[in-house]
Amino acid sequence: VFTVDALVEGVHFDRRFTPPDAIGHRALAVNLSDLAAMGAAPRLALLSFALPSDLLLPDFDAMVAALSSLACRHRLHVAGGNLTRSPGPLMIDVTLVGTVKPRQALTRSGARAGDEIYVTGSIGGAAAGLQMLRADTGTSQPPQVRLKADTTVSRYLYPEPRVRVGLLLARNRAASACVDLSDGLADGAWRLAEASSVGITIDAGSLPVDAEARECFEGAGKDPILEAITGGDDYELLFAVRPRLRGRLNAVIRAGGVPVTRIGVCSDNGSVVLRRGGDARSAGAPILTPMPHGYTHFR
Amino acid sequence: VFTVDALVEGVHFDRRFTPPDAIGHRALAVNLSDLAAMGAAPRLALLSFALPSDLLLPDFDAMVAALSSLACRHRLHVAGGNLTRSPGPLMIDVTLVGTVKPRQALTRSGARAGDEIYVTGSIGGAAAGLQMLRADTGTSQPPQVRLKADTTVSRYLYPEPRVRVGLLLARNRAASACVDLSDGLADGAWRLAEASSVGITIDAGSLPVDAEARECFEGAGKDPILEAITGGDDYELLFAVRPRLRGRLNAVIRAGGVPVTRIGVCSDNGSVVLRRGGDARSAGAPILTPMPHGYTHFR
Repeated sequence: VFTVDALVEGVHFDRRFTPPDAIGHRALAVNLSDLAAMGAAPRLALLSFALPSDLLLPDFDAMVAALSSLACRHRLHVAGGNLTRSPGPLMIDVTLVGTVKPRQALTRSGARAGDEIYVTGSIGGAAAGLQMLRADTGTSQPPQVRLKADTTVSRYLYPEPRVRVGLLLARNRAASACVDLSDGLADGAWRLAEASSVGITIDAGSLPVDAEARECFEGAGKDPILEAITGGDDYELLFAVRPRLRGRLNAVIRAGGVPVTRIGVCSDNGSVVLRRGGDARSAGAPILTPMPHGYTHFR
Repeated sequence: VFTVDALVEGVHFDRRFTPPDAIGHRALAVNLSDLAAMGAAPRLALLSFALPSDLLLPDFDAMVAALSSLACRHRLHVAGGNLTRSPGPLMIDVTLVGTVKPRQALTRSGARAGDEIYVTGSIGGAAAGLQMLRADTGTSQPPQVRLKADTTVSRYLYPEPRVRVGLLLARNRAASACVDLSDGLADGAWRLAEASSVGITIDAGSLPVDAEARECFEGAGKDPILEAITGGDDYELLFAVRPRLRGRLNAVIRAGGVPVTRIGVCSDNGSVVLRRGGDARSAGAPILTPMPHGYTHFR
Protein backbone atom coordinates (compact mmCIF):
# COMPACT_ATOMS: atom_id res chain seq x y z
CA VAL A 1 0.00 0.00 0.00
CA PHE A 2 1.35 3.41 -0.98
CA THR A 3 0.01 6.73 0.25
CA VAL A 4 1.06 10.37 -0.02
CA ASP A 5 -0.38 13.38 1.75
CA ALA A 6 0.74 16.97 2.14
CA LEU A 7 0.54 19.42 5.02
CA VAL A 8 0.62 23.01 3.76
CA GLU A 9 0.99 26.03 6.04
CA GLY A 10 -2.02 28.32 5.70
CA VAL A 11 -4.19 25.44 4.45
CA HIS A 12 -3.70 22.57 6.90
CA PHE A 13 -2.08 24.35 9.81
CA ASP A 14 -1.30 27.80 11.16
CA ARG A 15 2.22 28.30 12.49
CA ARG A 16 0.95 31.00 14.88
CA PHE A 17 -0.68 28.40 17.12
CA THR A 18 0.67 25.05 15.92
CA PRO A 19 4.00 24.34 17.64
CA PRO A 20 6.72 22.73 15.48
CA ASP A 21 6.48 19.36 17.20
CA ALA A 22 2.74 19.25 16.44
CA ILE A 23 3.42 20.06 12.78
CA GLY A 24 5.85 17.14 12.53
CA HIS A 25 3.55 14.81 14.45
CA ARG A 26 0.50 15.68 12.34
CA ALA A 27 2.35 15.38 9.02
CA LEU A 28 3.05 11.73 9.77
CA ALA A 29 -0.18 11.00 11.69
CA VAL A 30 -2.46 11.93 8.76
CA ASN A 31 -0.58 9.49 6.54
CA LEU A 32 -0.53 6.70 9.14
CA SER A 33 -4.29 7.19 9.36
CA ASP A 34 -4.55 6.51 5.61
CA LEU A 35 -2.66 3.23 6.07
CA ALA A 36 -4.87 2.39 9.06
CA ALA A 37 -7.98 2.86 6.92
CA MET A 38 -6.64 0.15 4.58
CA GLY A 39 -5.59 -2.16 7.40
CA ALA A 40 -1.95 -1.90 6.35
CA ALA A 41 1.12 -2.20 8.57
CA PRO A 42 3.46 0.83 8.27
CA ARG A 43 6.87 -0.03 6.78
CA LEU A 44 8.74 2.87 5.13
CA ALA A 45 8.47 6.66 5.03
CA LEU A 46 9.88 9.21 2.60
CA LEU A 47 9.75 12.85 3.69
CA SER A 48 9.82 15.92 1.50
CA PHE A 49 10.16 19.30 3.18
CA ALA A 50 9.88 22.75 1.55
CA LEU A 51 11.26 25.13 4.17
CA PRO A 52 10.69 28.91 4.33
CA SER A 53 13.72 31.01 5.20
CA ASP A 54 12.18 32.23 8.48
CA LEU A 55 11.98 28.71 9.91
CA LEU A 56 14.51 28.43 12.75
CA LEU A 57 16.77 25.41 13.03
CA PRO A 58 15.54 24.44 16.55
CA ASP A 59 11.97 24.50 15.19
CA PHE A 60 12.98 22.26 12.27
CA ASP A 61 14.68 19.91 14.74
CA ALA A 62 11.57 19.80 16.96
CA MET A 63 9.40 19.04 13.93
CA VAL A 64 11.62 16.17 12.82
CA ALA A 65 12.03 14.81 16.38
CA ALA A 66 8.25 14.58 16.89
CA LEU A 67 7.82 12.92 13.50
CA SER A 68 10.61 10.45 14.25
CA SER A 69 9.16 9.65 17.65
CA LEU A 70 5.76 8.80 16.16
CA ALA A 71 7.49 6.76 13.42
CA CYS A 72 9.41 4.86 16.07
CA ARG A 73 6.26 4.00 18.04
CA HIS A 74 4.78 2.46 14.88
CA ARG A 75 8.05 0.73 13.93
CA LEU A 76 8.13 2.77 10.74
CA HIS A 77 11.52 3.25 9.06
CA VAL A 78 12.19 6.76 7.72
CA ALA A 79 14.18 5.77 4.64
CA GLY A 80 15.02 9.16 3.21
CA GLY A 81 13.58 12.19 1.52
CA ASN A 82 14.22 15.61 0.15
CA LEU A 83 14.84 19.11 1.47
CA THR A 84 14.27 22.26 -0.52
CA ARG A 85 13.71 25.95 0.08
CA SER A 86 10.21 27.39 -0.11
CA PRO A 87 9.68 31.00 -1.14
CA GLY A 88 6.24 30.75 0.50
CA PRO A 89 4.63 28.44 3.05
CA LEU A 90 6.16 25.54 4.94
CA MET A 91 5.12 22.29 3.25
CA ILE A 92 5.63 18.70 4.31
CA ASP A 93 4.89 15.84 1.98
CA VAL A 94 4.97 12.36 3.47
CA THR A 95 4.90 9.18 1.40
CA LEU A 96 4.31 5.92 3.26
CA VAL A 97 4.73 2.33 2.19
CA GLY A 98 2.70 -0.22 4.11
CA THR A 99 1.94 -3.90 3.71
CA VAL A 100 -1.26 -5.90 3.92
CA LYS A 101 -2.28 -9.28 2.56
CA PRO A 102 -4.24 -8.63 -0.65
CA ARG A 103 -7.37 -10.43 0.52
CA GLN A 104 -7.28 -8.62 3.86
CA ALA A 105 -6.91 -5.05 2.57
CA LEU A 106 -9.74 -2.76 3.68
CA THR A 107 -11.37 -0.63 1.00
CA ARG A 108 -14.25 1.84 0.94
CA SER A 109 -16.32 -0.14 -1.48
CA GLY A 110 -17.32 -3.39 0.28
CA ALA A 111 -20.32 -2.25 2.35
CA ARG A 112 -23.76 -3.69 1.63
CA ALA A 113 -27.28 -2.74 2.73
CA GLY A 114 -27.82 -4.09 6.25
CA ASP A 115 -24.18 -3.68 7.34
CA GLU A 116 -23.81 -1.79 10.60
CA ILE A 117 -21.70 1.37 10.82
CA TYR A 118 -19.17 1.83 13.61
CA VAL A 119 -16.71 4.53 14.61
CA THR A 120 -13.61 4.34 16.83
CA GLY A 121 -12.92 6.68 19.75
CA SER A 122 -14.78 9.98 19.86
CA ILE A 123 -15.50 12.78 17.41
CA GLY A 124 -15.50 16.57 17.53
CA GLY A 125 -12.52 16.89 19.87
CA ALA A 126 -10.06 18.10 17.26
CA ALA A 127 -12.53 20.61 15.81
CA ALA A 128 -13.23 22.02 19.30
CA GLY A 129 -9.49 22.19 19.99
CA LEU A 130 -8.87 24.05 16.74
CA GLN A 131 -11.64 26.54 17.61
CA MET A 132 -10.04 27.14 21.02
CA LEU A 133 -6.60 27.66 19.47
CA ARG A 134 -8.01 30.07 16.89
CA ALA A 135 -9.98 32.03 19.49
CA ASP A 136 -6.88 32.33 21.63
CA THR A 137 -4.55 33.54 18.88
CA GLY A 138 -3.67 37.18 19.23
CA THR A 139 -5.23 37.56 22.67
CA SER A 140 -3.72 36.83 26.10
CA GLN A 141 -0.10 35.65 26.17
CA PRO A 142 1.33 33.06 26.54
CA PRO A 143 -1.52 30.60 25.94
CA GLN A 144 0.53 27.61 24.76
CA VAL A 145 1.01 25.92 28.11
CA ARG A 146 -2.59 26.17 29.24
CA LEU A 147 -3.97 25.17 25.85
CA LYS A 148 -1.60 22.26 25.31
CA ALA A 149 -2.85 20.74 28.54
CA ASP A 150 -6.42 20.85 27.20
CA THR A 151 -7.67 17.50 25.91
CA THR A 152 -9.42 18.80 22.80
CA VAL A 153 -6.45 20.98 21.89
CA SER A 154 -4.12 18.04 22.12
CA ARG A 155 -6.59 15.97 20.08
CA TYR A 156 -6.10 18.57 17.34
CA LEU A 157 -2.34 19.00 17.73
CA TYR A 158 -1.33 15.39 18.35
CA PRO A 159 -3.88 13.02 16.76
CA GLU A 160 -3.31 9.31 17.36
CA PRO A 161 -3.91 7.38 14.14
CA ARG A 162 -5.85 4.13 14.67
CA VAL A 163 -3.17 1.92 13.14
CA ARG A 164 -3.69 -1.00 15.51
CA VAL A 165 -7.47 -1.14 15.13
CA GLY A 166 -7.08 -0.93 11.32
CA LEU A 167 -4.65 -3.85 11.36
CA LEU A 168 -6.95 -5.92 13.57
CA LEU A 169 -10.02 -5.19 11.42
CA ALA A 170 -8.08 -6.35 8.36
CA ARG A 171 -6.55 -9.47 9.93
CA ASN A 172 -9.84 -10.59 11.45
CA ARG A 173 -11.72 -9.70 8.27
CA ALA A 174 -14.25 -7.97 10.50
CA ALA A 175 -15.00 -4.90 8.34
CA SER A 176 -16.62 -4.84 4.90
CA ALA A 177 -15.50 -1.23 4.25
CA CYS A 178 -13.45 1.38 6.09
CA VAL A 179 -12.48 5.04 5.81
CA ASP A 180 -10.58 7.42 8.08
CA LEU A 181 -12.15 10.65 9.28
CA SER A 182 -9.69 13.29 8.08
CA ASP A 183 -12.45 15.64 6.90
CA GLY A 184 -15.12 14.76 9.45
CA LEU A 185 -17.61 11.95 10.00
CA ALA A 186 -20.19 13.38 7.60
CA ASP A 187 -17.62 13.45 4.81
CA GLY A 188 -16.45 9.92 5.67
CA ALA A 189 -20.02 8.59 5.58
CA TRP A 190 -20.52 10.11 2.12
CA ARG A 191 -17.30 8.61 0.80
CA LEU A 192 -18.05 5.15 2.13
CA ALA A 193 -21.64 5.31 0.84
CA GLU A 194 -20.62 6.48 -2.62
CA ALA A 195 -17.81 3.94 -3.01
CA SER A 196 -20.04 1.09 -1.82
CA SER A 197 -23.20 2.29 -3.63
CA VAL A 198 -25.28 2.12 -0.45
CA GLY A 199 -27.23 4.57 1.66
CA ILE A 200 -26.23 5.24 5.26
CA THR A 201 -28.38 6.31 8.19
CA ILE A 202 -26.45 7.72 11.13
CA ASP A 203 -28.23 7.89 14.48
CA ALA A 204 -27.35 11.26 16.05
CA GLY A 205 -28.12 10.00 19.54
CA SER A 206 -25.46 7.28 19.30
CA LEU A 207 -22.60 9.51 18.16
CA PRO A 208 -19.65 9.45 20.59
CA VAL A 209 -19.23 13.23 20.70
CA ASP A 210 -16.29 14.18 22.90
CA ALA A 211 -17.76 15.52 26.19
CA GLU A 212 -15.45 18.52 26.38
CA ALA A 213 -16.10 19.34 22.73
CA ARG A 214 -19.85 19.17 23.30
CA GLU A 215 -19.53 21.70 26.14
CA CYS A 216 -17.36 23.93 24.00
CA PHE A 217 -19.80 23.86 21.05
CA GLU A 218 -22.84 24.42 23.28
CA GLY A 219 -21.05 27.30 25.02
CA ALA A 220 -20.58 28.92 21.63
CA GLY A 221 -24.31 28.50 20.87
CA LYS A 222 -23.66 25.89 18.18
CA ASP A 223 -25.32 22.53 17.49
CA PRO A 224 -22.82 20.04 18.97
CA ILE A 225 -23.87 17.20 16.66
CA LEU A 226 -23.46 19.23 13.46
CA GLU A 227 -20.15 20.66 14.66
CA ALA A 228 -18.83 17.23 15.61
CA ILE A 229 -19.72 15.53 12.32
CA THR A 230 -18.52 18.34 10.04
CA GLY A 231 -15.37 19.19 12.00
CA GLY A 232 -12.28 17.55 10.54
CA ASP A 233 -9.00 16.23 11.91
CA ASP A 234 -10.47 13.46 14.09
CA TYR A 235 -8.54 10.65 12.35
CA GLU A 236 -10.88 8.03 13.74
CA LEU A 237 -11.95 5.04 11.62
CA LEU A 238 -15.50 4.72 10.29
CA PHE A 239 -16.27 1.19 9.13
CA ALA A 240 -19.05 -1.19 8.15
CA VAL A 241 -19.58 -4.68 9.64
CA ARG A 242 -21.93 -7.42 8.46
CA PRO A 243 -24.31 -8.22 11.36
CA ARG A 244 -23.38 -11.93 11.29
CA LEU A 245 -19.67 -11.03 11.71
CA ARG A 246 -20.24 -9.07 14.93
CA GLY A 247 -18.29 -11.78 16.76
CA ARG A 248 -15.17 -10.92 14.78
CA LEU A 249 -15.66 -7.25 15.66
CA ASN A 250 -15.89 -8.13 19.35
CA ALA A 251 -12.51 -9.85 19.09
CA VAL A 252 -11.08 -6.69 17.51
CA ILE A 253 -12.57 -4.52 20.26
CA ARG A 254 -11.12 -6.75 23.00
CA ALA A 255 -7.63 -6.60 21.46
CA GLY A 256 -7.76 -3.05 20.13
CA GLY A 257 -7.77 -1.02 23.32
CA VAL A 258 -9.93 1.71 21.73
CA PRO A 259 -13.67 2.27 22.25
CA VAL A 260 -15.83 1.39 19.25
CA THR A 261 -19.43 2.64 18.93
CA ARG A 262 -22.24 1.48 16.65
CA ILE A 263 -23.71 4.63 15.12
CA GLY A 264 -25.80 3.59 12.15
CA VAL A 265 -26.67 1.19 9.38
CA CYS A 266 -26.32 0.85 5.61
CA SER A 267 -29.50 0.96 3.54
CA ASP A 268 -30.38 0.22 -0.06
CA ASN A 269 -32.05 3.58 -0.75
CA GLY A 270 -28.85 5.44 -1.65
CA SER A 271 -29.37 8.41 0.66
CA VAL A 272 -26.98 9.45 3.42
CA VAL A 273 -28.98 10.85 6.31
CA LEU A 274 -28.75 11.88 9.93
CA ARG A 275 -31.55 10.56 12.14
CA ARG A 276 -32.54 12.51 15.23
CA GLY A 277 -35.04 11.59 17.90
CA GLY A 278 -37.50 8.72 17.76
CA ASP A 279 -35.77 6.91 20.62
CA ALA A 280 -36.84 6.26 24.21
CA ARG A 281 -35.61 9.65 25.42
CA SER A 282 -37.44 11.84 22.90
CA ALA A 283 -41.13 11.87 22.09
CA GLY A 284 -42.45 11.78 18.53
CA ALA A 285 -41.22 10.32 15.28
CA PRO A 286 -37.57 10.49 14.25
CA ILE A 287 -36.48 13.31 11.94
CA LEU A 288 -34.24 12.43 8.99
CA THR A 289 -32.09 15.20 7.48
CA PRO A 290 -29.59 14.87 4.61
CA MET A 291 -26.05 14.42 5.86
CA PRO A 292 -24.08 17.68 5.38
CA HIS A 293 -21.09 17.58 3.08
CA GLY A 294 -17.58 18.04 4.47
CA TYR A 295 -14.69 20.34 3.77
CA THR A 296 -14.40 21.49 0.14
CA HIS A 297 -10.75 21.61 -0.96
CA PHE A 298 -11.39 23.48 -4.23
CA ARG A 299 -14.27 25.77 -5.20
CA VAL B 1 14.17 1.71 -4.94
CA PHE B 2 12.18 4.66 -3.62
CA THR B 3 12.81 8.29 -4.46
CA VAL B 4 11.07 11.58 -3.82
CA ASP B 5 11.86 14.99 -5.24
CA ALA B 6 10.04 18.32 -5.27
CA LEU B 7 9.72 21.06 -7.87
CA VAL B 8 8.92 24.40 -6.23
CA GLU B 9 7.94 27.51 -8.17
CA GLY B 10 10.44 30.29 -7.55
CA VAL B 11 13.15 27.78 -6.59
CA HIS B 12 13.22 25.15 -9.35
CA PHE B 13 11.27 26.88 -12.08
CA ASP B 14 9.80 30.22 -13.05
CA ARG B 15 6.24 30.16 -14.37
CA ARG B 16 6.90 33.30 -16.44
CA PHE B 17 9.01 31.32 -18.91
CA THR B 18 8.36 27.67 -18.11
CA PRO B 19 5.22 26.51 -19.91
CA PRO B 20 2.89 24.17 -17.98
CA ASP B 21 3.79 21.12 -20.05
CA ALA B 22 7.48 21.68 -19.27
CA ILE B 23 6.70 21.92 -15.54
CA GLY B 24 4.90 18.58 -15.64
CA HIS B 25 7.59 16.96 -17.77
CA ARG B 26 10.42 18.19 -15.54
CA ALA B 27 8.70 17.18 -12.29
CA LEU B 28 8.74 13.57 -13.43
CA ALA B 29 12.03 13.71 -15.38
CA VAL B 30 14.11 14.75 -12.35
CA ASN B 31 12.77 11.76 -10.44
CA LEU B 32 13.26 9.33 -13.31
CA SER B 33 16.85 10.57 -13.43
CA ASP B 34 17.27 9.56 -9.77
CA LEU B 35 16.08 6.04 -10.59
CA ALA B 36 18.39 5.98 -13.65
CA ALA B 37 21.35 6.83 -11.41
CA MET B 38 20.62 3.68 -9.40
CA GLY B 39 20.02 1.52 -12.47
CA ALA B 40 16.40 0.92 -11.44
CA ALA B 41 13.43 0.27 -13.72
CA PRO B 42 10.53 2.71 -13.12
CA ARG B 43 7.38 1.04 -11.77
CA LEU B 44 4.98 3.31 -9.84
CA ALA B 45 4.49 7.03 -9.33
CA LEU B 46 2.62 8.98 -6.64
CA LEU B 47 2.02 12.66 -7.35
CA SER B 48 1.36 15.41 -4.83
CA PHE B 49 0.33 18.82 -6.14
CA ALA B 50 -0.06 22.06 -4.15
CA LEU B 51 -1.92 24.37 -6.52
CA PRO B 52 -2.11 28.17 -6.28
CA SER B 53 -5.50 29.74 -6.96
CA ASP B 54 -4.27 31.57 -10.08
CA LEU B 55 -3.37 28.32 -11.88
CA LEU B 56 -5.84 27.86 -14.74
CA LEU B 57 -7.45 24.50 -15.38
CA PRO B 58 -6.09 24.19 -18.97
CA ASP B 59 -2.60 24.80 -17.57
CA PHE B 60 -3.10 22.12 -14.93
CA ASP B 61 -4.33 19.75 -17.63
CA ALA B 62 -1.28 20.49 -19.82
CA MET B 63 1.01 19.87 -16.87
CA VAL B 64 -0.57 16.51 -16.09
CA ALA B 65 -0.74 15.49 -19.77
CA ALA B 66 3.00 16.06 -20.26
CA LEU B 67 3.80 14.19 -17.07
CA SER B 68 1.54 11.29 -18.12
CA SER B 69 3.08 11.18 -21.57
CA LEU B 70 6.61 10.86 -20.14
CA ALA B 71 5.35 8.23 -17.65
CA CYS B 72 3.82 6.29 -20.51
CA ARG B 73 7.05 6.29 -22.52
CA HIS B 74 8.84 4.76 -19.53
CA ARG B 75 6.00 2.33 -18.82
CA LEU B 76 5.54 3.94 -15.41
CA HIS B 77 2.14 3.55 -13.73
CA VAL B 78 0.79 6.69 -12.02
CA ALA B 79 -0.92 4.98 -9.09
CA GLY B 80 -2.40 7.97 -7.31
CA GLY B 81 -1.59 11.03 -5.31
CA ASN B 82 -2.88 14.08 -3.58
CA LEU B 83 -4.19 17.52 -4.52
CA THR B 84 -4.23 20.48 -2.19
CA ARG B 85 -4.45 24.24 -2.41
CA SER B 86 -1.29 26.33 -2.02
CA PRO B 87 -1.48 29.84 -0.60
CA GLY B 88 1.92 30.46 -2.22
CA PRO B 89 3.95 28.80 -4.99
CA LEU B 90 3.00 25.87 -7.19
CA MET B 91 4.68 22.74 -5.84
CA ILE B 92 4.87 19.25 -7.28
CA ASP B 93 6.20 16.36 -5.27
CA VAL B 94 6.80 13.13 -7.13
CA THR B 95 7.52 9.82 -5.42
CA LEU B 96 8.72 6.96 -7.59
CA VAL B 97 9.05 3.27 -6.93
CA GLY B 98 11.53 1.39 -9.08
CA THR B 99 13.01 -2.08 -9.07
CA VAL B 100 16.56 -3.36 -9.46
CA LYS B 101 18.25 -6.60 -8.44
CA PRO B 102 20.06 -5.91 -5.15
CA ARG B 103 23.48 -6.91 -6.49
CA GLN B 104 23.01 -4.80 -9.61
CA ALA B 105 21.93 -1.54 -7.94
CA LEU B 106 24.24 1.35 -8.76
CA THR B 107 25.44 3.50 -5.86
CA ARG B 108 27.77 6.47 -5.51
CA SER B 109 30.23 4.69 -3.29
CA GLY B 110 31.83 1.93 -5.35
CA ALA B 111 34.52 3.85 -7.27
CA ARG B 112 38.21 3.05 -6.66
CA ALA B 113 41.44 4.81 -7.62
CA GLY B 114 42.20 3.97 -11.25
CA ASP B 115 38.54 3.77 -12.33
CA GLU B 116 37.78 5.87 -15.37
CA ILE B 117 35.07 8.55 -15.29
CA TYR B 118 32.46 8.78 -18.06
CA VAL B 119 29.51 11.02 -18.78
CA THR B 120 26.49 10.45 -21.05
CA GLY B 121 25.31 12.91 -23.71
CA SER B 122 26.47 16.50 -23.45
CA ILE B 123 26.64 19.12 -20.71
CA GLY B 124 25.88 22.82 -20.43
CA GLY B 125 22.88 22.78 -22.77
CA ALA B 126 20.25 23.18 -20.07
CA ALA B 127 22.18 25.99 -18.34
CA ALA B 128 22.54 27.85 -21.64
CA GLY B 129 18.85 27.35 -22.35
CA LEU B 130 17.90 28.69 -18.92
CA GLN B 131 20.10 31.77 -19.50
CA MET B 132 18.38 32.40 -22.83
CA LEU B 133 14.92 32.05 -21.29
CA ARG B 134 15.85 34.41 -18.44
CA ALA B 135 17.37 36.98 -20.79
CA ASP B 136 14.26 36.87 -22.93
CA THR B 137 11.75 37.30 -20.09
CA GLY B 138 10.12 40.71 -20.05
CA THR B 139 11.54 41.79 -23.42
CA SER B 140 10.15 41.16 -26.93
CA GLN B 141 6.87 39.26 -27.15
CA PRO B 142 6.00 36.47 -27.82
CA PRO B 143 9.29 34.61 -27.49
CA GLN B 144 7.91 31.16 -26.64
CA VAL B 145 7.72 29.73 -30.14
CA ARG B 146 11.19 30.80 -31.23
CA LEU B 147 12.76 29.76 -27.94
CA LYS B 148 11.03 26.39 -27.71
CA ALA B 149 12.54 25.49 -31.08
CA ASP B 150 16.02 26.17 -29.69
CA THR B 151 17.94 23.03 -28.76
CA THR B 152 19.43 24.33 -25.50
CA VAL B 153 16.08 25.76 -24.39
CA SER B 154 14.38 22.46 -24.97
CA ARG B 155 17.25 20.72 -23.11
CA TYR B 156 16.27 22.87 -20.13
CA LEU B 157 12.49 22.58 -20.52
CA TYR B 158 12.22 18.92 -21.53
CA PRO B 159 15.19 16.96 -20.17
CA GLU B 160 15.39 13.29 -21.17
CA PRO B 161 16.38 11.19 -18.17
CA ARG B 162 18.93 8.48 -19.01
CA VAL B 163 16.78 5.62 -17.76
CA ARG B 164 17.84 3.13 -20.44
CA VAL B 165 21.58 3.72 -20.01
CA GLY B 166 21.20 3.44 -16.22
CA LEU B 167 19.39 0.12 -16.60
CA LEU B 168 22.05 -1.21 -18.98
CA LEU B 169 24.94 -0.10 -16.73
CA ALA B 170 23.29 -1.96 -13.84
CA ARG B 171 22.40 -5.13 -15.75
CA ASN B 172 25.84 -5.40 -17.34
CA ARG B 173 27.53 -4.50 -14.06
CA ALA B 174 29.64 -2.07 -16.04
CA ALA B 175 29.79 0.84 -13.56
CA SER B 176 31.39 0.86 -10.11
CA ALA B 177 29.58 4.09 -9.10
CA CYS B 178 27.03 6.41 -10.68
CA VAL B 179 25.34 9.75 -10.02
CA ASP B 180 22.98 11.92 -12.06
CA LEU B 181 23.87 15.52 -12.89
CA SER B 182 20.94 17.46 -11.45
CA ASP B 183 23.18 20.18 -9.99
CA GLY B 184 25.96 20.12 -12.59
CA LEU B 185 28.96 17.95 -13.40
CA ALA B 186 31.23 19.61 -10.83
CA ASP B 187 28.71 18.85 -8.08
CA GLY B 188 28.27 15.29 -9.32
CA ALA B 189 32.04 14.70 -9.33
CA TRP B 190 32.25 15.92 -5.73
CA ARG B 191 29.41 13.67 -4.60
CA LEU B 192 30.84 10.59 -6.28
CA ALA B 193 34.34 11.32 -4.94
CA GLU B 194 33.12 11.90 -1.39
CA ALA B 195 30.88 8.82 -1.31
CA SER B 196 33.63 6.61 -2.76
CA SER B 197 36.50 8.22 -0.80
CA VAL B 198 38.54 8.80 -3.95
CA GLY B 199 39.93 11.81 -5.78
CA ILE B 200 38.79 12.64 -9.29
CA THR B 201 40.67 14.43 -12.06
CA ILE B 202 38.43 15.72 -14.87
CA ASP B 203 40.12 16.59 -18.15
CA ALA B 204 38.59 19.87 -19.38
CA GLY B 205 39.55 19.16 -22.99
CA SER B 206 37.50 15.95 -23.05
CA LEU B 207 34.26 17.43 -21.70
CA PRO B 208 31.36 17.03 -24.17
CA VAL B 209 30.17 20.63 -23.89
CA ASP B 210 27.09 21.22 -26.02
CA ALA B 211 28.22 23.15 -29.14
CA GLU B 212 25.36 25.64 -29.05
CA ALA B 213 25.86 26.18 -25.32
CA ARG B 214 29.57 26.83 -25.87
CA GLU B 215 28.72 29.53 -28.43
CA CYS B 216 26.15 31.04 -26.08
CA PHE B 217 28.60 31.16 -23.12
CA GLU B 218 31.45 32.55 -25.26
CA GLY B 219 29.10 35.17 -26.72
CA ALA B 220 28.34 36.30 -23.16
CA GLY B 221 32.08 36.54 -22.41
CA LYS B 222 32.00 33.59 -20.01
CA ASP B 223 34.33 30.59 -19.66
CA PRO B 224 32.36 27.81 -21.42
CA ILE B 225 33.98 25.02 -19.40
CA LEU B 226 33.19 26.58 -16.03
CA GLU B 227 29.66 27.45 -17.09
CA ALA B 228 29.04 23.93 -18.42
CA ILE B 229 30.30 22.11 -15.31
CA THR B 230 28.58 24.36 -12.76
CA GLY B 231 25.29 24.76 -14.64
CA GLY B 232 22.60 22.39 -13.41
CA ASP B 233 19.64 20.59 -14.95
CA ASP B 234 21.60 18.41 -17.39
CA TYR B 235 20.30 15.11 -15.98
CA GLU B 236 23.10 13.17 -17.62
CA LEU B 237 24.76 10.25 -15.81
CA LEU B 238 28.33 10.51 -14.47
CA PHE B 239 29.81 7.10 -13.69
CA ALA B 240 33.01 5.23 -12.95
CA VAL B 241 34.22 2.11 -14.78
CA ARG B 242 37.09 -0.22 -13.86
CA PRO B 243 39.55 -0.21 -16.81
CA ARG B 244 39.39 -4.00 -17.15
CA LEU B 245 35.57 -3.83 -17.52
CA ARG B 246 35.69 -1.46 -20.49
CA GLY B 247 34.31 -4.29 -22.64
CA ARG B 248 31.11 -4.30 -20.61
CA LEU B 249 30.83 -0.53 -21.08
CA ASN B 250 31.20 -0.96 -24.84
CA ALA B 251 28.23 -3.34 -24.82
CA VAL B 252 26.21 -0.71 -22.93
CA ILE B 253 27.20 2.00 -25.41
CA ARG B 254 26.21 -0.18 -28.39
CA ALA B 255 22.78 -0.89 -26.88
CA GLY B 256 22.21 2.46 -25.18
CA GLY B 257 21.79 4.78 -28.14
CA VAL B 258 23.35 7.68 -26.24
CA PRO B 259 26.91 9.03 -26.65
CA VAL B 260 29.25 8.29 -23.74
CA THR B 261 32.51 10.19 -23.25
CA ARG B 262 35.51 9.37 -21.08
CA ILE B 263 36.33 12.58 -19.20
CA GLY B 264 38.62 11.67 -16.32
CA VAL B 265 39.98 9.22 -13.81
CA CYS B 266 39.74 8.42 -10.10
CA SER B 267 42.86 8.94 -8.01
CA ASP B 268 43.91 8.03 -4.50
CA ASN B 269 44.89 11.56 -3.44
CA GLY B 270 41.39 12.63 -2.39
CA SER B 271 41.28 15.88 -4.35
CA VAL B 272 38.70 16.70 -7.00
CA VAL B 273 40.35 18.77 -9.71
CA LEU B 274 39.89 20.11 -13.21
CA ARG B 275 42.87 19.61 -15.52
CA ARG B 276 43.42 22.05 -18.38
CA GLY B 277 46.04 21.92 -21.12
CA GLY B 278 49.03 19.58 -21.22
CA ASP B 279 47.68 17.79 -24.26
CA ALA B 280 48.81 17.77 -27.88
CA ARG B 281 46.90 20.93 -28.76
CA SER B 282 48.25 23.19 -26.02
CA ALA B 283 51.86 23.89 -25.18
CA GLY B 284 53.26 23.68 -21.65
CA ALA B 285 52.37 21.64 -18.56
CA PRO B 286 48.76 20.96 -17.54
CA ILE B 287 47.16 23.26 -14.97
CA LEU B 288 45.16 21.64 -12.16
CA THR B 289 42.51 23.74 -10.39
CA PRO B 290 40.17 22.64 -7.60
CA MET B 291 36.77 21.63 -8.93
CA PRO B 292 34.21 24.34 -8.13
CA HIS B 293 31.30 23.43 -5.89
CA GLY B 294 27.78 23.31 -7.28
CA TYR B 295 24.48 24.87 -6.36
CA THR B 296 23.98 25.54 -2.63
CA HIS B 297 20.40 24.79 -1.57
CA PHE B 298 20.69 26.38 1.90
CA ARG B 299 23.09 29.05 3.16
